[in-house]
This record gives sequence, structure tokens and C-alpha cells, in this order.
Amino acid sequence: MTTTPAGQAATSPEPGEIMAREMAEQPAVLQRVLDEGVPAIREVAAEIGRRRPRFVLLTARGTSDNAAYYAKYLIEVGLGIPAGLTSMSTATAYGARPDFSDVLSITVSQSGGSPDLVAYTEMAKAAGALTLAVTNVADSPVNQASELALDVLAGPEKALPATKSYTAELLTLFLLVDAVRGGDGSAAKGLPDLAASIQDRRDEVAKLAERYRFASRLVITSRGYGYPTAREAALKIMETSYLPAHAFSGADLLHGPLAMVDNVSPVIAIASAGAGGAALEPVLDRLRERGADLVVVGSREHVAGASAGFVLPSGVAEEVAPILEILPLQQLAYEVTTARGLNPDAPRALAKVTETK
Amino acid sequence: MTTTPAGQAATSPEPGEIMAREMAEQPAVLQRVLDEGVPAIREVAAEIGRRRPRFVLLTARGTSDNAAYYAKYLIEVGLGIPAGLTSMSTATAYGARPDFSDVLSITVSQSGGSPDLVAYTEMAKAAGALTLAVTNVADSPVNQASELALDVLAGPEKALPATKSYTAELLTLFLLVDAVRGGDGSAAKGLPDLAASIQDRRDEVAKLAERYRFASRLVITSRGYGYPTAREAALKIMETSYLPAHAFSGADLLHGPLAMVDNVSPVIAIASAGAGGAALEPVLDRLRERGADLVVVGSREHVAGASAGFVLPSGVAEEVAPILEILPLQQLAYEVTTARGLNPDAPRALAKVTETK
Repeated sequence: MTTTPAGQAATSPEPGEIMAREMAEQPAVLQRVLDEGVPAIREVAAEIGRRRPRFVLLTARGTSDNAAYYAKYLIEVGLGIPAGLTSMSTATAYGARPDFSDVLSITVSQSGGSPDLVAYTEMAKAAGALTLAVTNVADSPVNQASELALDVLAGPEKALPATKSYTAELLTLFLLVDAVRGGDGSAAKGLPDLAASIQDRRDEVAKLAERYRFASRLVITSRGYGYPTAREAALKIMETSYLPAHAFSGADLLHGPLAMVDNVSPVIAIASAGAGGAALEPVLDRLRERGADLVVVGSREHVAGASAGFVLPSGVAEEVAPILEILPLQQLAYEVTTARGLNPDAPRALAKVTETK
Repeated sequence: MTTTPAGQAATSPEPGEIMAREMAEQPAVLQRVLDEGVPAIREVAAEIGRRRPRFVLLTARGTSDNAAYYAKYLIEVGLGIPAGLTSMSTATAYGARPDFSDVLSITVSQSGGSPDLVAYTEMAKAAGALTLAVTNVADSPVNQASELALDVLAGPEKALPATKSYTAELLTLFLLVDAVRGGDGSAAKGLPDLAASIQDRRDEVAKLAERYRFASRLVITSRGYGYPTAREAALKIMETSYLPAHAFSGADLLHGPLAMVDNVSPVIAIASAGAGGAALEPVLDRLRERGADLVVVGSREHVAGASAGFVLPSGVAEEVAPILEILPLQQLAYEVTTARGLNPDAPRALAKVTETK
């Protein structure tokens, strides 16, 4: 595992300018996926339909791993096909050569350039899997190693913290799963406008960010479709502000880590309308009993029971809610980081393409 | 999700006495699994061999989820069968009814009592999976819901932080996978004595624990077989001492969270001899460059390059090393907790059977 030197993004004239610009592009990126991405998505969906995979394995790291987690829920719930996230080291360090016949292996990556992703994808293909690359670089090594490929059309991403490539990956994966089951993607139609309306509320997020100015830890929780959002929010906050942020599924939180939470431990819960938010309610009750400072990003009803929050638009299908939920949390990471005098475009110690092997 | 009131373990006369006793039982528990567990393990292995599953799904929460993670590596590397960890909410919250024919579904749980584990196991059986319970309570609801069952023979576990049930689960899962591939379990023969020799070195661990007396965060990392150890060590420390401890695979650490690490951020790395430890070396280099306080639990060579460490016995097969690696880290959680004046037997807010639904 080696990493190229960081710093190319540090030439930004204003700290955070690049991340802010890329976050702001997200409504347009979502619209581009809907306008230009669908034909290729339908072709790939048709090929998957012909090959009838019995298992799906998802390979990814970092932000894209959270997109893969979202796809896992979609595939299991929406397609009834068991899905799992791979541990690349089984192949790269231990030389595992499993039987992947009837397996659809999806590699999700912004750059498509990490050597371990390429190596795992090549192994999966050699082991008999149908391989699909979902990347933001159309001719990347992961694409070249894969039989099928989808470009998430986010455009070049320069800030080290990934934002627009994440929501583009989520939407592409939703449209793909929806097409495989014969849907028309209509649940996603309103997302670009709703995303723009959320991004117009930056002042609300800046106000929320004030309470974390001096926080020394943060717990983020959700259940179901919202859980990948909790993971991605924690990663975004950690890599930009260096504030340790722990993501737990609500159920796992009760199996131990709840002991960490007290009245000086801030908690953010993602609780959208639907079954995931409903399943989280008993967890929210326990957090309130523990005296936690609880901020909810989600439905008006869930926000009303919290210390503070950010209300997401109503009437959005729970399956696609993660594409909106992350937007105020990306902005929160940005606001906490700039308030601490740090530059979110170029976190210390990181490189855009992480060359893990 | 509801949780029964905590506190029954708090009747312990001395804080930490129950956890200390259960940790100390581990060499005897491992010996019991080797002496008494093998016939049942071989029967289950033979049945798995007859049914020839093509995919393995593991269902668990908390400490047992870390044992399941270990089994995932073993199964993919040792058996060449793709394996995944389930997200129970796909079934319990969203009603997913996937096709589980040719799937081996393993539910790992100390108590076998969590309603969501039972519900998922029942769903898996109805969906066509071969179901196997690996629990510490032979007549538990998860056992009753499963076609096959293995008792991990740890004996009643009273402390809220699971210790002996974890190592018993690891050894049972190793012996199972080894039996499926036709092995004789010989790699595990020396573990009870080696475990006892590690537990005789409590003073070394108490010395290491001093450096975390006033820590406000902790990062724990590993790769490959050691990664479940990192996760379990973090969970043990969080649930007993309330110190936020983050586990990252070494590769994921470079994809963002490395930015959190600096010269006041302590890092513990699990780096045993073998491919996992070798794959972690570039990560250890990056951590040293960042000025991290690096403590290594692992081989003498890896410990020599760190700020401090705990040397594990040499000559242990990497596959079974996790059964030993966790022992000094359980003890570390205990020492940090008692040094902070807290009672590791009864962490606030927790119950032994977490009734997540």
C-alpha cells in the first residue's frame, strides 16, 4: 500500500472553495444522470437480467464503500438477491480464489484507480463473475478490468472529500436496480430540484454546525437505508474536520457503544420517513433517556422530538432518500471544518487516489 | 427495539471481578471446545459438505458480529465460497424475502435471544437456506429456529462485556471451517497453553494501559485476519471505558480517516506474523510519518518498530492468531476502565441480552 503525495488540491485560492463548488454542482449532476445516464444503465440492467446472477458482491473503499452499502440494501430488498461487501485482502493478501459463477461483482469507485480494486475485479472476473464497474472515470483501470461499466457522470472531482461522485453513484445504483426490476426510475425524477432546495438552506446548516465547534467526538446513527448515510457523514466529518465521528446502526449502538453516549456526547440521527426511521424510534428514545444532545436529519416528525435538526422534504420514496439526506451532512462537515480554521479541500495526509494494494 | 433493564451484573462484590474471572477462564474454555466440541463440529461440517452451499451469509450483532467477520475471512480464503454479513433490517424493517437456495446462513450469538436474530434466521430458513446457529445457550430461540446448531461451550457469561464467548465462537468457527475442508484442527491444538501464557503477562498490559489513562480517543487498525480483532478491541474499550475507539482496516484508514491521526492521537495496530501483518506495514509507515503514538500487538518484529507493544507468541498459524490477539486487548479494556474508576462488569445503559427488533 503506497499513497501518492497529497497537495495538488491545496492550490485552491480560497480554503474550501473546491469542495463548496463540487457540493453545489450536485443538483446539476443528478439531472445529468437522469438525462444522459439512463440509456447505458438500461443496457447494463438488461444484460444483468439475461445473466440472472444469484449473488451480488460489492467492492469499494471509502466514500464509494458507503454507496456500495446503499446498493446492498437496494439489491436485497428490491431484487431479492443476497448481496455482500467484499474484503479485498482475502484475494490480495491471502490469494483466495473463490468460485464466483452466478455472481455479479460490482466495483464502485470515483477514480477507478486503486490497485486493490483493480486486482479484486480481475480476480472476480477470472473466478467466473459477471463484472460491472461503476466509476466516475470512464477509461479507468477498474473499467478496463470489467465486462460492463457505468460512468456516474459527476465530472472531474478535485476536492479530496468526495461529494458529487457519492450522490451520482447512489443515483446510478438506484436507477440500475430499479431498471433490473422493470421500474422506470420515476421515484428519482424530483431529486435534482429537491437537492437544490436543500442546498438553499445553508444557513440552517451553519447554525447547526455551531454546536459542534468545540465537540471532541460525535456519534451518528440510523437504520436501514439511512445507515449508509450515517457512515458517509461520519467519514466526511472525520476526513475534513478531524473530529472523531462514529457511525453505528441503531441496533448495533444498543449492543455496547451506547455506553459511550452521555449528556456531553452529541448524537446525529438520520431518521427519514418510512420503515427505517420507524425502526430507529426506540433508539431515539434510549438516546433521549441518556440525556444525549440529539440532532435529527429527517422527517418533520422525527426532528420535532430532537434537540435540533434539519427537516428533509416530504413525499420522497425511502429508497432514494439517501441521495438527499447526505446533502446537509456534507455541508455540516464543511462548516465545522472551516469554523475550525481548516481547509476542507485538502485534508492533511490524504491523496485523491489512494493506492492501497 | 427495546432493551431489558441493565444491572443484574452490578451485584458483583468487586468492580470488574466478573469480567476478570471470565477472561481468566478462556484457556479452559478453549480446551473444552477442543476436548468436547469437536464431535458436534464434525457432524455439522459433514452436513455442510453434503449440502454444498455456494454462498455463506453470517448474521450477528456486537461482539458476535466480529466473530462473524473472522468467519467470513476463513470461509472465503479457506473454502473458496463467497461470504457476506447480513443487514437484518432488510428483512425485519423492509420485509425482504430473498432467494436463499444454496445459501448457508450462520447466526452467531452469545445468548441466541435477540428477536431480530431470531426473525432473520426464520426468514433465512423459509427462504431456502441451510441454517446453522452458533451460540453459547444450547436451547436458545436462535437454535430452535435453526436446522443445525453448535454450542460454543463457554459456560454462562455474566459480565456485560463478552470475552470468553468471543474466543469460544472464534475457535468453534475455525474448527468448523477446517473440518469442512478436511482438516484435523491441528493448528488450534496449542492455543489453550498459549492463551494461559499471555494471561500471565497482565502486568505488561497494565503498563500499556497507563498511556491511555487520559486519552480522549483511540484508533485501532489491522488488515486481514487481524481486522476483526481491531473491531472487537474497539468495541470492548468503548463499552467498558466509554473511550471512543475507532477500528479501521489499514486500507480504509488511508481513505480518509488518516487525517484524524496526529501526534496526540494514539493508535493501536494488530500486526501478527503473516500476510495480514505484511500488508499492514505500509500503513504503519504512514502512521509513523504522521507522528502517531503507535502501540503494536503482534509479532516481535512489528512491535520493535513501534512506540511500545505486546509481543504475541511466534509459530502460531495466522488463521488462528485472532484467538490469541484479542486477549491482551480485552485486558487492556479492563485496565483502562478500572483505572478510570469505572466498573467493567456493568457498563451504564447496557443489558446482556439486547432485544433489538
